Amino acid sequence: MSAYETLMAHARETEALGQISGLLSWDQEAIMPPKGAEARSEQAGALSAVLHQRRTDPRVGEWLEAIDAGSLAPAQAANVRLIRRDHDRATRIPVALASEIARVTARAHGTWADARESRDVAAFLPTLDRIVTLMREKADCLATDGARYDALLAGFEPGTDSATVAATFQRLRTGLVTLRARIFEAGGEAGGEAGGETGGEVPRVSGTFARGAQLALAQSLAQTFHYDMNAGRIDLVVHPFCSGTRGDVRITTRVDEADPFNCLYSTIHETGHALYEQGLAPELAWQPAGQHASMGVHESQSRLCENQIGRSRAFMDVLFPRMRDAFGSFGVETPEDLYRAVNRVESGFIRTEADEVHYNLHIMLRFDLERALIAGDLEVGDLEAAWNDRFEADFGRAVTDPALGVLQDVHWSAGLFGYFPTYALGNVYAAELFAAMQSALPGLDDAIRAGDLADAVSWLRGAVHHPAATREPTDVIADATGHAPSEAALLGYLEAKFSDLYGL
Amino acid sequence: MSAYETLMAHARETEALGQISGLLSWDQEAIMPPKGAEARSEQAGALSAVLHQRRTDPRVGEWLEAIDAGSLAPAQAANVRLIRRDHDRATRIPVALASEIARVTARAHGTWADARESRDVAAFLPTLDRIVTLMREKADCLATDGARYDALLAGFEPGTDSATVAATFQRLRTGLVTLRARIFEAGGEAGGEAGGETGGEVPRVSGTFARGAQLALAQSLAQTFHYDMNAGRIDLVVHPFCSGTRGDVRITTRVDEADPFNCLYSTIHETGHALYEQGLAPELAWQPAGQHASMGVHESQSRLCENQIGRSRAFMDVLFPRMRDAFGSFGVETPEDLYRAVNRVESGFIRTEADEVHYNLHIMLRFDLERALIAGDLEVGDLEAAWNDRFEADFGRAVTDPALGVLQDVHWSAGLFGYFPTYALGNVYAAELFAAMQSALPGLDDAIRAGDLADAVSWLRGAVHHPAATREPTDVIADATGHAPSEAALLGYLEAKFSDLYGL
Repeated sequence: MSAYETLMAHARETEALGQISGLLSWDQEAIMPPKGAEARSEQAGALSAVLHQRRTDPRVGEWLEAIDAGSLAPAQAANVRLIRRDHDRATRIPVALASEIARVTARAHGTWADARESRDVAAFLPTLDRIVTLMREKADCLATDGARYDALLAGFEPGTDSATVAATFQRLRTGLVTLRARIFEAGGEAGGEAGGETGGEVPRVSGTFARGAQLALAQSLAQTFHYDMNAGRIDLVVHPFCSGTRGDVRITTRVDEADPFNCLYSTIHETGHALYEQGLAPELAWQPAGQHASMGVHESQSRLCENQIGRSRAFMDVLFPRMRDAFGSFGVETPEDLYRAVNRVESGFIRTEADEVHYNLHIMLRFDLERALIAGDLEVGDLEAAWNDRFEADFGRAVTDPALGVLQDVHWSAGLFGYFPTYALGNVYAAELFAAMQSALPGLDDAIRAGDLADAVSWLRGAVHHPAATREPTDVIADATGHAPSEAALLGYLEAKFSDLYGL
Repeated sequence: MSAYETLMAHARETEALGQISGLLSWDQEAIMPPKGAEARSEQAGALSAVLHQRRTDPRVGEWLEAIDAGSLAPAQAANVRLIRRDHDRATRIPVALASEIARVTARAHGTWADARESRDVAAFLPTLDRIVTLMREKADCLATDGARYDALLAGFEPGTDSATVAATFQRLRTGLVTLRARIFEAGGEAGGEAGGETGGEVPRVSGTFARGAQLALAQSLAQTFHYDMNAGRIDLVVHPFCSGTRGDVRITTRVDEADPFNCLYSTIHETGHALYEQGLAPELAWQPAGQHASMGVHESQSRLCENQIGRSRAFMDVLFPRMRDAFGSFGVETPEDLYRAVNRVESGFIRTEADEVHYNLHIMLRFDLERALIAGDLEVGDLEAAWNDRFEADFGRAVTDPALGVLQDVHWSAGLFGYFPTYALGNVYAAELFAAMQSALPGLDDAIRAGDLADAVSWLRGAVHHPAATREPTDVIADATGHAPSEAALLGYLEAKFSDLYGL
């Protein structure tokens, strides 16, 4: 075997073991009996040690050295590039630091959950302080140029840097704050705690929505989006996610019997992720270049399905009759009223419940704060005040409950610094991709109205799923749209949609 | 760390990875989407390579050498003994042979299933011939004394040998053949193909038994046997099994809407296996000495629950009213009629559907044939004729369909030679244990009648579950009963039960 073939055989086994690691997490969240938790953490730890050993195996470095780069086809060159990047990052982190991060973050989940439950920020701060310190150390190991935060960001969104992201976000934030103000001036809703109160005008669903009926409708919607149930399954969890790749991509969802949109839209969201994994180029299976390009590109697939298609006026012709069939009369009388209901703008505290106008403001708040934390410009003791100040500035409301503020997300307790911006980048990419899809498919609106998403999914397959990670994330988007991605498409889309909805 | 501690830390991680391997199989059989099969085989293969590497790691041999045996407590000595045995066996098999066995048996499953489907023995013979050859090679690597079959048997039932097993089986067979003849003389049933025809007198269930009602009843029965649903779950599969250990022990079952006993008794059977795993001594967790003693002891736990308790007259006072509640009228009118129905004696072709009188005759047939195959006294080309001759001799019927004959079991296609006898040993051990339990618990019959199995399960915990693998399998049974296990208890139990049932 050539050095390239040896390297790829090794990578293939590593990928197989990595897939097992994903299955362990899925099983734990979705179906594991409660008393399995202790053994599961040993199992996951043992497997993760095996994976770390493989990623840092000195032979990987030797094989990479021995490869004749000139002889490689483009996808092969991408494989080598991705394996080198992964190997470099893995070997730069000392084993002791990696173990310490694993140990601290494993315990931090419980500390964070307890602190959130009891609204006690101080109880979480020592743990968070330790995590931030460890993340700074990790970033210092990874950063060749001293750019700490960029080194962490690259773990989730390679090929970009935080200055570029920050510039995009700054323009996006300006546009969103303005749009938001205009909506509220025009009589939009201010929302109450957790976005629960109503201003009165926008239609709301009413009644009880049976669990079984919600799940059946969720599955039918996933299948309308061409989710392949022979290559996946749908289960219930507390916090929905998508797990697996290609022939085994599992969606999870949740059910709130008072609010059917929770289940339906989280299912469509996870279906978007699942389509990406089910649609990756078959000929690149088991290769690094055949995996998803980045978390931002992943999120673009989920958000495009959820928002650009799932919350479009056209899609209401699909959703309304199906909800009628599933639930009978549910308090919303027409597809147009349903369109207004699923696009309600409310200034709530919770990121995951935010509408399209507010969502990215939540992200940018976290992005700015975590950048400052990692840079050392903000200390953990000042974080809550910084959060609350920024929230009031952007959302016009004071945070009075830390469970709805600085304690609301799991990410920082898990050491996920550099992850939040990928959510907003996903929204930016989704708008770019949808605009390109609309140009490519003139009949798109009618097709959505008819519940026929074959061409839309097929376009995504060609534009995003098949290219997989053969190119850098922004190049994948640029190749699909014809230009480098910017926030303009997203602002234009939101401006048009909400001007129409609120008569701006 | 001492050499012992280093060895145990290594064994702990290996055990954790081995548990993952079990989870992969469970997931595949129970809930994996069909298109996941290809990736799953890569995942299982990669993990199995990691496990093989750990089991044959030369450092294990060095640590074993370095341990001061005199300093060890009994459970520690058992750990060392078990790790040494596993390491010795693993290192005796050349890597190339292990891979070839894995490769051939992985493919053989499909070949066997197709051959059984099309009733084409010849289509399976070349594969089986290759497997037998590989098993002889494997046995030659393992056998230090030339006793090939014993070397394979030791992989499932350590601490015994095939001559001892054969002598037990010979006495058991004589007793069973006699008992069987007396039952049929007294007017028992001869059965039709697959045991489907009735002789007429024994009551039969009638009606359709709804899947949901069967599963709910199955779960309630498992819980009556003290199966802990917080440390397990019940799912549907084609061929039921039990998977996992301690805090996560998953039962599987199946449903036949025409025959509720299929689901109910396979659930009780798997519950017996699950009780063993859930009940293993907590202080021995992650240690080789804290695992099940052997497959025979495992089977004793499932069969004792299924037969000695589950098919007892006393248990009908539990089962009859619950079946009435679950299914309404079901063609059997009294607990006594139900007792006769669940103990029907029929001379069927299928091992897994056999009654207590016939079951071990199925096993001994397989044991004798596979011993002859491994020894080289029988060649694969003569196997079908040998099977059919022996079946007719023991069961009084000619095999006309190989799917009901030599092709019925999956074991040989999976390379499981030496496994079959553990089923009959399990029955032998179960009878021994139940007799001891009856002596220890004078109120047992009344307790079973009341559905109170707390004392019975508690006795099994102390006698079998807690000792785990700290001693050899036959020593565990002997310690529990006060004497070396023999077939006498089983023959006595069957004689008493069926004399009464058939008025012999």
